[in-house]
Amino acid sequence: MVDDTDPFLSLDPQGADWDRLRVTGHHMLDMMFDNLRDIREHPVWQPLPDDMRSGFRHASVPEHGVDAATFGEAFRETVLPYSVGNRHPGFMGWVHGGGTPVGMLAEMLAAGLNANLGGRDHAPVEVERMVVRWAATLMGFPETASGLFVTGSSMANFIAVIVASRAAKDGLSLRKNGVGGRSLVGYAARSAHGCVSRAFDLAGLGSDALRLVPLDKTFRMDTAALKAMIAADRESGLEPFLVVGTAGTVDVGAIDPLDTIAGIAAEEGVWFHVDGAFGAMAALSPRFKEALSGLEKADSLAFDFHKWAQVPYDAGCAIVRDPAKHAAAFAQTLSYLSREDRGLAAGAPWFCDLGPDLSRGFRALKVWATLSVYGTHRLGKMVDHCCAVARHLAERVASEPTLELMAPVTLDIVCFRLRDPALTEEQLDHLNGEVVKDVQESGLAAPSTTRIDGHLVIRAAIVNHRTMAADVDRMVDAVLSFAAKRRSG
Amino acid sequence: MVDDTDPFLSLDPQGADWDRLRVTGHHMLDMMFDNLRDIREHPVWQPLPDDMRSGFRHASVPEHGVDAATFGEAFRETVLPYSVGNRHPGFMGWVHGGGTPVGMLAEMLAAGLNANLGGRDHAPVEVERMVVRWAATLMGFPETASGLFVTGSSMANFIAVIVASRAAKDGLSLRKNGVGGRSLVGYAARSAHGCVSRAFDLAGLGSDALRLVPLDKTFRMDTAALKAMIAADRESGLEPFLVVGTAGTVDVGAIDPLDTIAGIAAEEGVWFHVDGAFGAMAALSPRFKEALSGLEKADSLAFDFHKWAQVPYDAGCAIVRDPAKHAAAFAQTLSYLSREDRGLAAGAPWFCDLGPDLSRGFRALKVWATLSVYGTHRLGKMVDHCCAVARHLAERVASEPTLELMAPVTLDIVCFRLRDPALTEEQLDHLNGEVVKDVQESGLAAPSTTRIDGHLVIRAAIVNHRTMAADVDRMVDAVLSFAAKRRSG
Ligand SMILES: Cc1ncc(COP(=O)(O)O)c(C=O)c1O
Ligand SMILES: Cc1ncc(COP(=O)(O)O)c(C=O)c1O
Repeated sequence: MVDDTDPFLSLDPQGADWDRLRVTGHHMLDMMFDNLRDIREHPVWQPLPDDMRSGFRHASVPEHGVDAATFGEAFRETVLPYSVGNRHPGFMGWVHGGGTPVGMLAEMLAAGLNANLGGRDHAPVEVERMVVRWAATLMGFPETASGLFVTGSSMANFIAVIVASRAAKDGLSLRKNGVGGRSLVGYAARSAHGCVSRAFDLAGLGSDALRLVPLDKTFRMDTAALKAMIAADRESGLEPFLVVGTAGTVDVGAIDPLDTIAGIAAEEGVWFHVDGAFGAMAALSPRFKEALSGLEKADSLAFDFHKWAQVPYDAGCAIVRDPAKHAAAFAQTLSYLSREDRGLAAGAPWFCDLGPDLSRGFRALKVWATLSVYGTHRLGKMVDHCCAVARHLAERVASEPTLELMAPVTLDIVCFRLRDPALTEEQLDHLNGEVVKDVQESGLAAPSTTRIDGHLVIRAAIVNHRTMAADVDRMVDAVLSFAAKRRSG
Repeated sequence: MVDDTDPFLSLDPQGADWDRLRVTGHHMLDMMFDNLRDIREHPVWQPLPDDMRSGFRHASVPEHGVDAATFGEAFRETVLPYSVGNRHPGFMGWVHGGGTPVGMLAEMLAAGLNANLGGRDHAPVEVERMVVRWAATLMGFPETASGLFVTGSSMANFIAVIVASRAAKDGLSLRKNGVGGRSLVGYAARSAHGCVSRAFDLAGLGSDALRLVPLDKTFRMDTAALKAMIAADRESGLEPFLVVGTAGTVDVGAIDPLDTIAGIAAEEGVWFHVDGAFGAMAALSPRFKEALSGLEKADSLAFDFHKWAQVPYDAGCAIVRDPAKHAAAFAQTLSYLSREDRGLAAGAPWFCDLGPDLSRGFRALKVWATLSVYGTHRLGKMVDHCCAVARHLAERVASEPTLELMAPVTLDIVCFRLRDPALTEEQLDHLNGEVVKDVQESGLAAPSTTRIDGHLVIRAAIVNHRTMAADVDRMVDAVLSFAAKRRSG
């Protein structure tokens, strides 16, 4: 007979331990509220001390448990002060959202609920459908568009490559037969994010099957070159199936001429996908209506709520205009997942028919919370403000004789560098790279770097709702003062 | 000039609003604690009322925000009571973990911290490395094995297919050139999860390139057939590159003869991957040492912490024995992600070099919390207890004249059905299917269904730490009483 009498069989607390755990939970919540409220008082980033790093590297598997409060202490001491810093207003490295306390609370609710959004008939799947519909609407897609939440735009772009290839002529047979024996090729500007080429790699098409289209002088896709490349490829017997336009390129924040690309894709009969990882959020501001024109014509769209929409990681979103093509690319029938007319197994189509994941967390809840508590109007103002701060930074750069702007500022990304006629290009690259590390290590600000036309440049992405003009000024001051130190040192 | 004076530019609360939001947060936390503590008093599942469903389906995009407390109310009324029910001890449908309050708290910490685990040098990446090392160790892999957290085993199995194909002869060239022109084939038992065949589809190999090996009488891979199939495929010029063994098949919970498969894979020089989505957790119980023997020889392993380890969704894990082969399959160089010797951009290799995602949430924290607060010893006892409850259910089924057991019980899954000599097979399928829906709709318990040898069977997966013998008895009672009602009705 099975022994059910041991109180430790379930992992739930027993009796009064519920109250102890509850107290611990409230302490943890207060710790996070304090930490978020006082975030400006901490350094943006500080390296993990060696002893703690070594502690993580040598800790052995915990055989016997500790109190949740003890775990919370370990988190407070060894993790909380040594995180990546993207919540801090001085963080401008890469394209990271800042998060919000509302997103934190929503994620707590989601984890307590522990819903699996792969399928079945329950309220969480209705929430995801609602939020996907909202996302589609905001981006100018029809309400009937299909979509789902995924980890990030890398995955959403991969999904687009899969759906687009399966929607190509005879594409559904690729699912059984593989992509061999076909010569599918796609197009994206040279400035497209590396995850698009990775998507071609993972999908078995090979990264060479993504043709990189040159840029015009404004860092946007050269659409005349696109047309010529498609024609040349058709000429040599290849099968163009996809063009990817980017709304907000990762290096400089440019927006490809989406409307022109949409026209070319329609003429050529190829799928038009937009990677709007962060830039699609600019659709919430009337200011960028024209720049984003054509986005609403895309066959599919990838973008992230964890970037400019400030939803905690991770929360990517894939939208596909034609729900039938979307489902056809992923749907499977498994006997243990049969769909029923009533009961828990009703409510088809299921999200597991629309992407690679079967078990899926409730990402949609934190997105619902964010849209519902802030509203699209305020989020649009926040987007506008980030862009205003970026322009402020560009003006500041222009006003500093030792700095130069390296690309036009379309959205929220500013690329600049220290200049010095006395230095070679190589020395300049070195100087800019070292100064960025100096600034990061100072804890005052955290820009990052990239390369433009081969030059190493300092890159500031203003993606955090907390970043104000004073914060970018502080960053520039730090860059100038570390540069001066290096020159005199 | 940029105007930074509007207090609504940042999404953070202003002044006293911090305190208001804090109070709301504590209310939400209490709501979840109460709900978890009293989970047994609620129905396992109840359908979402029509008016609420319609509310979700017609709600328009929120232009202006509401109070966080108002959002919390909406969640409490329209989501909390109508979720999938997997936290309830009466839930035995599919393979769903139950979650824990500790996992909930950890997820709150992770969301408040809002770390992006794609790369860079910070404590969260050290935590993920630590927990991956622990996971590898627990599964008998060397400490040096590579790995990362992903959404679930579907993604972890996909990663394994990618790594295995890139580790095949000349496999690295597939990344650029695609899989065309090669004839890579893999093998898994007929009982393998559908996501393995989907992984072949997504990777461009085509689902037909996954050969399905017949089962022996105990629902395990017939390894003689495997050998014969590999030989025949080589004969016809195909390139076998991968064998997938399953530890815990989704339909009946069987464990393939992993040790024999490991031997065959070694002889044939093909990659040996184990899908241990839920079953790998049995490694925490000494009881299953023999049954799992050979797991520790795998080249890679996929398993989930969100299933039997009770970590909230989602938390899958991919482990690869050879870190170099793992990184070679995914690593990319992007100029804006350059890795440095110091500063924030130090600490290579980054997790974005080991899987398809760039931005990545801090899944590792809830796994760390779970292992640390419960310890592996207690988790192993919990696994044992679930299996004991499953055996109890099997005995109960055997003792009921109107029920029959449909497969041997290896781990925590029991397949059975109502029998009735007066009914045709078709009528039996119908009866069993309808009774399962009746039971689900009653809110008393939630088994699901699958098919075994073409028969529709009732399937109970005891994956929830809260499920006790009394709960499976209640489920059987409900099945019997609804069946009786249908017979007399
Ligand atoms: C334009 C663009 N596309 C795709 C990505 C990848 O998105 P994720 O990190 O969400 O996978 C990024 C990341 O910064 C990006 O900027
Ligand atoms: C054996 C097996 N493999 C893979 C999976 C898919 O795992 P996930 O739902 O985490 O993607 C499952 C799901 O139940 C499973 O049982």
